[in-house]
Amino acid sequence: MLELYHYEPYANSMKCLLCLREKGLDFVSHYVDILKFEQHTPEFVALNPCGQVPVLVHDGAAISESTVINEYLEDVFPEVRLRPTDPVERAGMRVWNKFVDEVLMHSVSAIGWHLRFHPFVKKIDISEFKERLKHIPMKEMQDKWLKTHEDSFTEEELNEAKRRIRWAIEKLEQILAESFWLAGSAYSLADINTYPMIEGAARLYPEGCNDDAAPRTMEWLHRISQRPAVAEAFAYSRFGNAPGKAADAQAKR
Amino acid sequence: MLELYHYEPYANSMKCLLCLREKGLDFVSHYVDILKFEQHTPEFVALNPCGQVPVLVHDGAAISESTVINEYLEDVFPEVRLRPTDPVERAGMRVWNKFVDEVLMHSVSAIGWHLRFHPFVKKIDISEFKERLKHIPMKEMQDKWLKTHEDSFTEEELNEAKRRIRWAIEKLEQILAESFWLAGSAYSLADINTYPMIEGAARLYPEGCNDDAAPRTMEWLHRISQRPAVAEAFAYSRFGNAPGKAADAQAKR
Repeated sequence: MLELYHYEPYANSMKCLLCLREKGLDFVSHYVDILKFEQHTPEFVALNPCGQVPVLVHDGAAISESTVINEYLEDVFPEVRLRPTDPVERAGMRVWNKFVDEVLMHSVSAIGWHLRFHPFVKKIDISEFKERLKHIPMKEMQDKWLKTHEDSFTEEELNEAKRRIRWAIEKLEQILAESFWLAGSAYSLADINTYPMIEGAARLYPEGCNDDAAPRTMEWLHRISQRPAVAEAFAYSRFGNAPGKAADAQAKR
Repeated sequence: MLELYHYEPYANSMKCLLCLREKGLDFVSHYVDILKFEQHTPEFVALNPCGQVPVLVHDGAAISESTVINEYLEDVFPEVRLRPTDPVERAGMRVWNKFVDEVLMHSVSAIGWHLRFHPFVKKIDISEFKERLKHIPMKEMQDKWLKTHEDSFTEEELNEAKRRIRWAIEKLEQILAESFWLAGSAYSLADINTYPMIEGAARLYPEGCNDDAAPRTMEWLHRISQRPAVAEAFAYSRFGNAPGKAADAQAKR
Protein backbone atom coordinates (compact mmCIF):
# COMPACT_ATOMS: atom_id res chain seq x y z
CA MET A 1 0.00 0.00 0.00
CA LEU A 2 1.14 3.52 -0.86
CA GLU A 3 0.35 6.47 1.41
CA LEU A 4 1.37 10.08 0.89
CA TYR A 5 1.51 12.62 3.69
CA HIS A 6 1.30 15.98 1.97
CA TYR A 7 0.12 19.56 2.28
CA GLU A 8 -1.54 21.64 -0.46
CA PRO A 9 -0.62 20.60 -4.03
CA TYR A 10 2.25 22.97 -4.51
CA ALA A 11 5.99 23.15 -3.78
CA ASN A 12 7.51 19.88 -2.55
CA SER A 13 4.19 18.13 -1.86
CA MET A 14 3.15 18.78 -5.47
CA LYS A 15 6.29 17.07 -6.82
CA CYS A 16 5.24 13.72 -5.33
CA LEU A 17 1.53 14.12 -6.10
CA LEU A 18 2.47 14.71 -9.75
CA CYS A 19 4.86 11.76 -9.89
CA LEU A 20 2.33 9.37 -8.33
CA ARG A 21 -0.47 10.44 -10.66
CA GLU A 22 1.77 10.53 -13.74
CA LYS A 23 2.54 6.88 -13.01
CA GLY A 24 -1.15 6.14 -12.47
CA LEU A 25 -0.47 5.00 -8.90
CA ASP A 26 -3.29 5.06 -6.38
CA PHE A 27 -2.46 6.03 -2.83
CA VAL A 28 -4.03 6.93 0.47
CA SER A 29 -3.79 10.70 0.93
CA HIS A 30 -3.02 12.09 4.40
CA TYR A 31 -3.44 15.85 4.38
CA VAL A 32 -1.00 17.51 6.82
CA ASP A 33 -1.96 21.12 7.58
CA ILE A 34 1.39 22.82 8.04
CA LEU A 35 -0.23 26.07 9.20
CA LYS A 36 -1.68 24.02 12.06
CA PHE A 37 1.83 22.62 12.64
CA GLU A 38 0.58 19.07 12.14
CA GLN A 39 4.03 18.19 10.73
CA HIS A 40 5.51 18.55 14.21
CA THR A 41 3.29 16.11 16.08
CA PRO A 42 5.09 13.11 17.62
CA GLU A 43 3.20 10.81 15.22
CA PHE A 44 4.47 12.69 12.19
CA VAL A 45 8.00 13.15 13.50
CA ALA A 46 8.12 9.36 13.95
CA LEU A 47 7.69 9.15 10.16
CA ASN A 48 10.13 11.97 9.34
CA PRO A 49 12.47 13.15 12.10
CA CYS A 50 12.88 16.44 10.22
CA GLY A 51 9.16 17.19 10.61
CA GLN A 52 8.60 18.05 6.98
CA VAL A 53 6.15 17.05 4.27
CA PRO A 54 5.93 15.16 1.99
CA VAL A 55 6.49 11.64 3.31
CA LEU A 56 5.73 8.50 1.31
CA VAL A 57 4.89 5.33 3.22
CA HIS A 58 5.17 2.17 1.12
CA ASP A 59 4.14 -1.06 2.83
CA GLY A 60 5.13 0.47 6.15
CA ALA A 61 8.50 1.95 5.09
CA ALA A 62 8.63 5.75 5.38
CA ILE A 63 10.61 7.76 2.82
CA SER A 64 11.17 11.52 3.06
CA GLU A 65 12.55 14.25 0.77
CA SER A 66 10.42 14.83 -2.32
CA THR A 67 13.30 14.41 -4.79
CA VAL A 68 14.30 11.11 -3.18
CA ILE A 69 10.67 9.95 -3.04
CA ASN A 70 10.33 10.51 -6.79
CA GLU A 71 13.54 8.55 -7.53
CA TYR A 72 12.19 5.81 -5.25
CA LEU A 73 8.91 5.68 -7.15
CA GLU A 74 10.93 5.38 -10.36
CA ASP A 75 13.07 2.57 -8.87
CA VAL A 76 10.03 0.59 -7.71
CA PHE A 77 7.42 1.44 -10.37
CA PRO A 78 9.42 1.94 -13.60
CA GLU A 79 6.53 1.06 -15.95
CA VAL A 80 5.70 4.68 -16.75
CA ARG A 81 9.26 5.88 -17.23
CA LEU A 82 10.11 9.32 -15.82
CA ARG A 83 13.92 9.04 -15.75
CA PRO A 84 16.06 9.09 -18.90
CA THR A 85 17.55 5.70 -19.82
CA ASP A 86 20.69 7.34 -21.19
CA PRO A 87 23.05 7.72 -18.19
CA VAL A 88 24.40 11.10 -19.33
CA GLU A 89 20.86 12.49 -19.65
CA ARG A 90 20.01 10.93 -16.31
CA ALA A 91 22.98 12.71 -14.72
CA GLY A 92 21.80 15.95 -16.35
CA MET A 93 18.40 15.39 -14.76
CA ARG A 94 20.00 14.94 -11.34
CA VAL A 95 22.21 18.03 -11.66
CA TRP A 96 19.11 20.02 -12.55
CA ASN A 97 17.10 18.54 -9.67
CA LYS A 98 19.88 19.54 -7.25
CA PHE A 99 19.65 23.11 -8.55
CA VAL A 100 15.89 23.05 -7.99
CA ASP A 101 16.33 21.76 -4.43
CA GLU A 102 19.26 23.96 -3.44
CA VAL A 103 18.47 27.22 -5.21
CA LEU A 104 15.07 27.56 -6.90
CA MET A 105 12.89 25.96 -4.24
CA HIS A 106 14.27 28.08 -1.38
CA SER A 107 13.88 31.26 -3.44
CA VAL A 108 10.23 30.63 -4.31
CA SER A 109 9.63 29.49 -0.73
CA ALA A 110 11.01 32.75 0.74
CA ILE A 111 8.58 34.82 -1.34
CA GLY A 112 5.71 32.42 -0.66
CA TRP A 113 6.24 32.39 3.10
CA HIS A 114 6.56 36.17 3.10
CA LEU A 115 3.42 36.82 1.07
CA ARG A 116 1.18 33.97 2.23
CA PHE A 117 2.37 32.66 5.60
CA HIS A 118 3.58 35.88 7.24
CA PRO A 119 0.13 37.60 7.21
CA PHE A 120 -1.35 34.41 8.67
CA VAL A 121 1.15 33.54 11.41
CA LYS A 122 1.80 37.09 12.62
CA LYS A 123 -1.74 37.06 14.07
CA ILE A 124 -0.78 34.25 16.42
CA ASP A 125 0.18 35.41 19.92
CA ILE A 126 3.98 35.30 20.17
CA SER A 127 4.15 33.29 23.41
CA GLU A 128 1.72 30.71 22.00
CA PHE A 129 3.77 30.70 18.79
CA LYS A 130 7.06 30.16 20.63
CA GLU A 131 5.44 27.26 22.46
CA ARG A 132 4.63 25.71 19.07
CA LEU A 133 8.18 26.29 17.83
CA LYS A 134 9.53 24.05 20.58
CA HIS A 135 8.04 21.05 18.81
CA ILE A 136 9.95 21.73 15.58
CA PRO A 137 12.82 19.25 15.39
CA MET A 138 15.14 21.28 13.14
CA LYS A 139 16.68 24.55 14.33
CA GLU A 140 16.70 25.79 10.70
CA MET A 141 12.92 25.46 10.52
CA GLN A 142 12.41 26.97 13.98
CA ASP A 143 14.37 30.00 12.78
CA LYS A 144 12.41 30.21 9.52
CA TRP A 145 9.03 30.12 11.31
CA LEU A 146 10.13 32.64 13.95
CA LYS A 147 11.37 34.99 11.23
CA THR A 148 8.06 34.58 9.39
CA HIS A 149 6.16 35.53 12.55
CA GLU A 150 8.32 38.56 13.26
CA ASP A 151 9.56 40.90 10.53
CA SER A 152 9.53 38.14 7.91
CA PHE A 153 12.17 38.14 5.17
CA THR A 154 14.12 41.35 4.62
CA GLU A 155 13.95 43.38 1.42
CA GLU A 156 17.51 42.25 0.69
CA GLU A 157 16.62 38.58 1.15
CA LEU A 158 13.56 38.90 -1.06
CA ASN A 159 15.59 40.67 -3.75
CA GLU A 160 18.18 37.90 -3.62
CA ALA A 161 15.39 35.31 -3.93
CA LYS A 162 14.06 37.16 -6.99
CA ARG A 163 17.54 37.31 -8.51
CA ARG A 164 17.87 33.55 -8.10
CA ILE A 165 14.46 32.96 -9.67
CA ARG A 166 15.52 35.09 -12.65
CA TRP A 167 18.75 33.05 -12.81
CA ALA A 168 16.73 29.82 -12.88
CA ILE A 169 14.49 31.25 -15.60
CA GLU A 170 17.54 32.23 -17.64
CA LYS A 171 18.76 28.63 -17.43
CA LEU A 172 15.29 27.32 -18.31
CA GLU A 173 15.04 29.59 -21.35
CA GLN A 174 18.41 28.26 -22.56
CA ILE A 175 17.47 24.61 -22.03
CA LEU A 176 14.04 24.99 -23.63
CA ALA A 177 15.54 26.73 -26.68
CA GLU A 178 17.20 23.41 -27.52
CA SER A 179 14.98 20.79 -25.95
CA PHE A 180 11.25 20.16 -25.62
CA TRP A 181 11.65 18.88 -22.05
CA LEU A 182 14.26 19.63 -19.38
CA ALA A 183 16.30 16.41 -19.39
CA GLY A 184 16.21 15.12 -22.94
CA SER A 185 13.43 14.30 -25.34
CA ALA A 186 10.99 12.80 -22.82
CA TYR A 187 9.00 14.26 -19.93
CA SER A 188 10.93 13.40 -16.75
CA LEU A 189 11.37 14.02 -13.04
CA ALA A 190 13.27 17.20 -14.00
CA ASP A 191 10.04 18.65 -15.43
CA ILE A 192 7.92 17.28 -12.58
CA ASN A 193 10.22 18.66 -9.87
CA THR A 194 10.46 22.07 -11.54
CA TYR A 195 6.78 22.54 -12.40
CA PRO A 196 5.56 23.39 -8.86
CA MET A 197 8.39 25.89 -8.39
CA ILE A 198 7.70 27.77 -11.63
CA GLU A 199 3.94 27.57 -11.04
CA GLY A 200 4.69 29.28 -7.72
CA ALA A 201 7.09 31.81 -9.25
CA ALA A 202 4.53 32.83 -11.88
CA ARG A 203 1.94 33.38 -9.16
CA LEU A 204 4.11 34.95 -6.45
CA TYR A 205 6.61 36.89 -8.58
CA PRO A 206 4.75 37.72 -11.81
CA GLU A 207 7.02 40.73 -12.50
CA GLY A 208 9.90 38.30 -13.09
CA CYS A 209 8.08 35.24 -14.36
CA ASN A 210 5.69 36.08 -17.18
CA ASP A 211 5.18 35.61 -20.94
CA ASP A 212 7.52 38.47 -21.83
CA ALA A 213 10.38 37.68 -19.44
CA ALA A 214 10.12 33.91 -19.78
CA PRO A 215 8.30 32.98 -22.99
CA ARG A 216 9.62 29.42 -23.37
CA THR A 217 9.30 28.70 -19.66
CA MET A 218 5.68 29.88 -19.62
CA GLU A 219 4.89 27.84 -22.72
CA TRP A 220 6.46 24.78 -21.03
CA LEU A 221 4.45 25.52 -17.86
CA HIS A 222 1.24 25.76 -19.83
CA ARG A 223 2.03 22.54 -21.69
CA ILE A 224 2.49 20.65 -18.41
CA SER A 225 -0.67 22.19 -16.95
CA GLN A 226 -2.64 20.33 -19.63
CA ARG A 227 -1.49 16.91 -18.41
CA PRO A 228 -4.21 14.94 -16.58
CA ALA A 229 -1.83 14.30 -13.64
CA VAL A 230 -1.75 18.03 -12.88
CA ALA A 231 -5.53 18.30 -12.51
CA GLU A 232 -5.53 15.07 -10.49
CA ALA A 233 -2.88 16.50 -8.15
CA PHE A 234 -4.70 19.83 -7.76
CA ALA A 235 -7.82 17.89 -6.76
CA TYR A 236 -6.07 17.23 -3.42
CA SER A 237 -6.31 20.93 -2.54
CA ARG A 238 -8.63 21.84 0.28
CA PHE A 239 -8.97 25.37 -1.10
CA GLY A 240 -9.68 24.90 -4.76
CA ASN A 241 -8.59 22.59 -7.52
CA ALA A 242 -6.99 24.86 -10.08
CA PRO A 243 -3.47 26.31 -10.16
CA GLY A 244 -3.18 29.32 -7.92
CA LYS A 245 -6.56 28.96 -6.26
CA ALA A 246 -5.12 27.08 -3.31
CA ALA A 247 -2.67 29.82 -2.46
CA ASP A 248 -5.20 32.58 -3.03
CA ALA A 249 -7.69 30.91 -0.70
CA GLN A 250 -4.86 30.44 1.77
CA ALA A 251 -4.13 34.16 1.79
CA LYS A 252 -7.80 34.95 2.46
CA ARG A 253 -8.18 32.65 5.46
CA MET B 1 37.93 7.04 -21.67
CA LEU B 2 37.39 8.45 -18.19
CA GLU B 3 38.92 11.77 -17.13
CA LEU B 4 38.52 13.48 -13.77
CA TYR B 5 39.12 17.17 -13.25
CA HIS B 6 39.78 17.52 -9.53
CA TYR B 7 41.63 19.51 -6.89
CA GLU B 8 43.37 18.07 -3.81
CA PRO B 9 41.94 14.75 -2.57
CA TYR B 10 39.52 16.17 -0.07
CA ALA B 11 35.97 17.53 0.03
CA ASN B 12 34.00 17.06 -3.19
CA SER B 13 37.00 16.08 -5.33
CA MET B 14 37.78 13.27 -2.89
CA LYS B 15 34.26 11.82 -3.21
CA CYS B 16 34.81 11.04 -6.89
CA LEU B 17 38.44 9.94 -6.50
CA LEU B 18 37.27 7.43 -3.88
CA CYS B 19 34.38 6.16 -5.99
CA LEU B 20 36.57 5.69 -9.08
CA ARG B 21 39.30 3.85 -7.17
CA GLU B 22 36.82 1.77 -5.14
CA LYS B 23 35.44 0.54 -8.46
CA GLY B 24 38.98 -0.08 -9.74
CA LEU B 25 38.45 2.35 -12.61
CA ASP B 26 41.47 3.93 -14.26
CA PHE B 27 41.18 7.52 -15.37
CA VAL B 28 43.20 10.44 -16.64
CA SER B 29 43.70 12.89 -13.80
CA HIS B 30 43.52 16.63 -14.52
CA TYR B 31 44.62 18.57 -11.45
CA VAL B 32 42.79 21.92 -11.23
CA ASP B 33 44.45 24.33 -8.79
CA ILE B 34 41.54 26.23 -7.34
CA LEU B 35 43.83 28.64 -5.48
CA LYS B 36 45.15 29.62 -8.91
CA PHE B 37 41.50 29.99 -10.02
CA GLU B 38 42.03 27.43 -12.79
CA GLN B 39 38.37 26.41 -12.38
CA HIS B 40 37.31 29.76 -13.88
CA THR B 41 39.21 29.56 -17.16
CA PRO B 42 37.07 29.54 -20.31
CA GLU B 43 38.26 25.97 -21.03
CA PHE B 44 37.07 24.73 -17.66
CA VAL B 45 33.81 26.70 -17.68
CA ALA B 46 33.05 25.06 -21.02
CA LEU B 47 33.08 21.75 -19.11
CA ASN B 48 31.13 23.02 -16.10
CA PRO B 49 29.31 26.36 -16.46
CA CYS B 50 29.33 26.67 -12.65
CA GLY B 51 33.16 26.73 -12.64
CA GLN B 52 33.51 24.10 -9.93
CA VAL B 53 35.46 20.88 -9.48
CA PRO B 54 35.11 17.95 -9.77
CA VAL B 55 34.04 17.23 -13.34
CA LEU B 56 34.02 13.76 -14.88
CA VAL B 57 34.44 13.46 -18.64
CA HIS B 58 33.39 10.09 -20.01
CA ASP B 59 33.98 9.55 -23.72
CA GLY B 60 33.61 13.29 -24.24
CA ALA B 61 30.48 13.83 -22.10
CA ALA B 62 31.08 16.14 -19.13
CA ILE B 63 29.26 15.49 -15.85
CA SER B 64 29.42 17.83 -12.85
CA GLU B 65 28.36 17.67 -9.19
CA SER B 66 30.25 15.05 -7.18
CA THR B 67 27.10 13.32 -5.85
CA VAL B 68 25.68 13.05 -9.36
CA ILE B 69 29.03 11.87 -10.76
CA ASN B 70 29.09 9.03 -8.22
CA GLU B 71 25.54 7.95 -9.10
CA TYR B 72 26.57 8.11 -12.77
CA LEU B 73 29.58 5.86 -12.12
CA GLU B 74 27.22 3.44 -10.38
CA ASP B 75 24.76 3.54 -13.31
CA VAL B 76 27.49 2.87 -15.88
CA PHE B 77 29.93 0.66 -13.93
CA PRO B 78 27.76 -1.34 -11.52
CA GLU B 79 30.19 -4.29 -11.20
CA VAL B 80 31.58 -3.13 -7.86
CA ARG B 81 28.27 -2.22 -6.26
CA LEU B 82 28.20 0.96 -4.16
CA ARG B 83 24.45 1.56 -4.07
CA PRO B 84 22.06 -0.62 -2.03
CA THR B 85 19.89 -2.92 -4.14
CA ASP B 86 16.98 -2.59 -1.71
CA PRO B 87 15.03 0.48 -2.87
CA VAL B 88 14.23 1.62 0.69
CA GLU B 89 17.91 1.49 1.67
CA ARG B 90 18.78 3.23 -1.58
CA ALA B 91 16.34 6.02 -0.71
CA GLY B 92 17.94 6.23 2.73
CA MET B 93 21.33 6.62 1.07
CA ARG B 94 20.00 9.47 -1.08
CA VAL B 95 18.38 11.27 1.85
CA TRP B 96 21.69 11.06 3.69
CA ASN B 97 23.68 12.26 0.65
CA LYS B 98 21.37 15.28 0.38
CA PHE B 99 22.11 16.11 4.01
CA VAL B 100 25.85 15.85 3.30
CA ASP B 101 25.52 18.16 0.28
CA GLU B 102 23.14 20.69 1.80
CA VAL B 103 24.35 20.86 5.41
CA LEU B 104 27.57 19.03 6.30
CA MET B 105 29.68 19.95 3.27
CA HIS B 106 28.97 23.71 3.55
CA SER B 107 29.74 23.65 7.28
CA VAL B 108 33.10 21.93 6.90
CA SER B 109 33.83 24.14 3.89
CA ALA B 110 33.22 27.36 5.88
CA ILE B 111 35.77 26.35 8.51
CA GLY B 112 38.22 25.06 5.89
CA TRP B 113 38.06 28.23 3.81
CA HIS B 114 38.43 30.33 6.94
CA LEU B 115 41.44 28.43 8.30
CA ARG B 116 43.21 27.44 5.09
CA PHE B 117 42.14 29.71 2.23
CA HIS B 118 41.70 33.02 4.07
CA PRO B 119 45.39 33.29 5.16
CA PHE B 120 46.40 32.50 1.58
CA VAL B 121 44.07 34.73 -0.43
CA LYS B 122 44.18 37.76 1.88
CA LYS B 123 47.76 38.31 0.69
CA ILE B 124 46.56 38.89 -2.86
CA ASP B 125 46.15 42.55 -3.77
CA ILE B 126 42.44 43.40 -3.62
CA SER B 127 42.21 45.00 -7.08
CA GLU B 128 43.98 42.03 -8.65
CA PHE B 129 41.68 39.75 -6.65
CA LYS B 130 38.53 41.56 -7.80
CA GLU B 131 39.76 41.22 -11.36
CA ARG B 132 39.95 37.43 -10.83
CA LEU B 133 36.46 37.37 -9.30
CA LYS B 134 34.99 38.68 -12.54
CA HIS B 135 35.73 35.32 -14.16
CA ILE B 136 33.68 33.38 -11.62
CA PRO B 137 30.41 32.42 -13.28
CA MET B 138 28.28 32.08 -10.11
CA LYS B 139 27.49 35.11 -7.94
CA GLU B 140 27.35 32.81 -4.88
CA MET B 141 30.97 31.79 -5.42
CA GLN B 142 32.08 35.36 -6.18
CA ASP B 143 30.60 36.36 -2.82
CA LYS B 144 32.25 33.43 -1.00
CA TRP B 145 35.71 34.25 -2.42
CA LEU B 146 35.36 37.97 -1.71
CA LYS B 147 34.29 37.23 1.85
CA THR B 148 37.29 34.90 2.24
CA HIS B 149 39.60 37.67 1.04
CA GLU B 150 38.12 40.29 3.34
CA ASP B 151 37.06 39.54 6.93
CA SER B 152 36.35 35.89 6.14
CA PHE B 153 33.52 34.12 7.93
CA THR B 154 32.11 35.77 11.06
CA GLU B 155 32.33 34.20 14.51
CA GLU B 156 28.56 33.63 14.32
CA GLU B 157 28.82 31.87 10.98
CA LEU B 158 31.66 29.67 12.18
CA ASN B 159 29.74 28.79 15.34
CA GLU B 160 26.71 27.88 13.25
CA ALA B 161 28.95 25.71 11.02
CA LYS B 162 30.29 23.96 14.13
CA ARG B 163 26.76 23.42 15.45
CA ARG B 164 25.80 21.79 12.17
CA ILE B 165 28.87 19.56 12.23
CA ARG B 166 27.92 18.46 15.76
CA TRP B 167 24.37 17.82 14.48
CA ALA B 168 25.77 15.65 11.68
CA ILE B 169 27.95 13.77 14.16
CA GLU B 170 24.96 13.19 16.41
CA LYS B 171 23.13 11.65 13.46
CA LEU B 172 26.19 9.57 12.54
CA GLU B 173 26.55 8.26 16.09
CA GLN B 174 22.90 7.17 16.01
CA ILE B 175 23.21 5.46 12.62
CA LEU B 176 26.47 3.73 13.49
CA ALA B 177 25.04 2.44 16.77
CA GLU B 178 22.72 0.26 14.70
CA SER B 179 24.57 -0.27 11.45
CA PHE B 180 28.12 -1.03 10.38
CA TRP B 181 27.84 1.29 7.36
CA LEU B 182 25.69 4.37 6.72
CA ALA B 183 23.11 2.98 4.29
CA GLY B 184 22.60 -0.64 5.23
CA SER B 185 24.95 -3.56 5.62
CA ALA B 186 27.31 -2.74 2.74
CA TYR B 187 29.81 0.05 2.11
CA SER B 188 28.06 2.53 -0.20
CA LEU B 189 28.10 5.99 -1.73
CA ALA B 190 26.74 7.26 1.61
CA ASP B 191 30.02 6.28 3.29
CA ILE B 192 32.12 7.51 0.35
CA ASN B 193 30.39 10.89 0.19
CA THR B 194 30.63 11.40 3.95
CA TYR B 195 34.23 10.28 4.47
CA PRO B 196 35.92 13.42 3.06
CA MET B 197 33.66 15.69 5.12
CA ILE B 198 34.36 13.92 8.41
CA GLU B 199 38.07 13.61 7.56
CA GLY B 200 37.96 17.40 7.17
CA ALA B 201 35.92 17.94 10.33
CA ALA B 202 38.36 15.86 12.41
CA ARG B 203 41.26 17.91 11.07
CA LEU B 204 39.69 21.39 11.05
CA TYR B 205 37.39 21.14 14.08
CA PRO B 206 39.04 18.60 16.42
CA GLU B 207 37.30 20.09 19.50
CA GLY B 208 33.98 18.83 18.10
CA CYS B 209 35.09 15.80 16.14
CA ASN B 210 37.31 13.49 18.16
CA ASP B 211 37.33 10.05 19.83
CA ASP B 212 35.47 11.30 22.91
CA ALA B 213 32.78 13.36 21.20
CA ALA B 214 32.31 10.99 18.27
CA PRO B 215 33.62 7.51 19.13
CA ARG B 216 31.64 5.52 16.57
CA THR B 217 32.19 8.11 13.87
CA MET B 218 35.93 8.12 14.45
CA GLU B 219 36.03 4.32 14.42
CA TRP B 220 34.10 4.36 11.12
CA LEU B 221 36.51 7.00 9.75
CA HIS B 222 39.51 4.91 10.76
CA ARG B 223 37.97 1.78 9.24
CA ILE B 224 37.49 3.54 5.88
CA SER B 225 41.02 5.00 6.00
CA GLN B 226 42.34 1.43 5.78
CA ARG B 227 40.71 0.79 2.41
CA PRO B 228 43.17 0.74 -0.49
CA ALA B 229 41.02 3.22 -2.44
CA VAL B 230 41.69 5.88 0.19
CA ALA B 231 45.48 5.66 -0.17
CA GLU B 232 45.08 5.56 -3.96
CA ALA B 233 42.99 8.73 -3.82
CA PHE B 234 45.42 10.52 -1.49
CA ALA B 235 48.20 9.73 -3.97
CA TYR B 236 46.69 12.43 -6.22
CA SER B 237 47.69 15.10 -3.70
CA ARG B 238 50.42 17.47 -4.74
CA PHE B 239 51.25 18.17 -1.12
CA GLY B 240 51.49 14.76 0.48
CA ASN B 241 49.69 11.47 0.25
CA ALA B 242 48.28 10.94 3.71
CA PRO B 243 45.09 12.30 5.27
CA GLY B 244 45.58 15.83 6.51
CA LYS B 245 48.97 16.38 4.94
CA ALA B 246 47.49 18.02 1.89
CA ALA B 247 45.70 20.69 3.87
CA ASP B 248 48.59 21.23 6.22
CA ALA B 249 50.98 21.78 3.31
CA GLN B 250 48.37 24.09 1.80
CA ALA B 251 48.36 26.23 4.91
CA LYS B 252 52.13 26.53 4.82
CA ARG B 253 52.42 27.64 1.19
